[in-house]
Amino acid sequence: MILHYRDRLVESDLQAVQEIVESTGFFTRAEIGVALELVQEHLAKGTASGYSFLLAEDGLGVTLGYTCFGPIPCTQESFDMYWIAVRPDHQGCGIGKSLFEQTEQSIAELGGSRIYIETSSRATYAPTREFYLKSGYRKEAALKDFYSPGDDKIIFTKELTSGKSSR
Amino acid sequence: MILHYRDRLVESDLQAVQEIVESTGFFTRAEIGVALELVQEHLAKGTASGYSFLLAEDGLGVTLGYTCFGPIPCTQESFDMYWIAVRPDHQGCGIGKSLFEQTEQSIAELGGSRIYIETSSRATYAPTREFYLKSGYRKEAALKDFYSPGDDKIIFTKELTSGKSSR
Repeated sequence: MILHYRDRLVESDLQAVQEIVESTGFFTRAEIGVALELVQEHLAKGTASGYSFLLAEDGLGVTLGYTCFGPIPCTQESFDMYWIAVRPDHQGCGIGKSLFEQTEQSIAELGGSRIYIETSSRATYAPTREFYLKSGYRKEAALKDFYSPGDDKIIFTKELTSGKSSR
Repeated sequence: MILHYRDRLVESDLQAVQEIVESTGFFTRAEIGVALELVQEHLAKGTASGYSFLLAEDGLGVTLGYTCFGPIPCTQESFDMYWIAVRPDHQGCGIGKSLFEQTEQSIAELGGSRIYIETSSRATYAPTREFYLKSGYRKEAALKDFYSPGDDKIIFTKELTSGKSSR
């Protein structure tokens, strides 16, 4: 499938993003609220919000997945990957991988050389963690009981070789 | 010295906080900008901003130090200690320690059971890290080159025994 990428959001993307994150069945109500808040921030302030987006669409303009990312304040070249989600009926066909690659390229163009992704240690997130590892991210740290008792935060990171600081 | 604590900010606290963070000679311009942004967020939205404050004042109402903290979204009982600063001419006399204790009590009352503080690995922050360790925080993780090449992020944490989840 040929994917089209778009980084300028329009008002209707709020609904598209909501449908994607809800359809995954993966996120809590609070997490979905945060996901939509980031879209609204971006719609209101653009990249000055600190949140950039990349939407992957099929040939008919249907949004199949997206990433949300941005520079980490007070760091030189570090970016957070805040969100990645792909419609469940389109998972397993490389959209997530492609979204990651495109996003990493965007981050490199914005001067980023290091990306962080945080996720949960819960069993339901095992495929997510596996996907990050397969995408070249490595587990750098774990914060015990961060989300709730028994639910740690796992921090993954990846260095972009094309970044500015190729020490 | 008898300290008075205040958690309701007024407009003039913006200047008081600016004076404190600038006087330390410790923070970059960008970091000072962030510190003031948090005050403005709190002035505009109150605790709904996600940022709570505790100011320590002397008997004449002069602000000697402050903390800024708040619940971490999508976590059950985790709080971030975003900021602690004490006027340099009043450092070394227990104000930081007292501010920490008062803030931990406030966090416990808000249902928090776990506090995170992040700082830099740079040599200038050695006294800061020492202060956190002495205050009962432990180093839980380090993110290499997070702030810039050679400047890691160190994550400290402390569990509050008086928190709701006394497992």
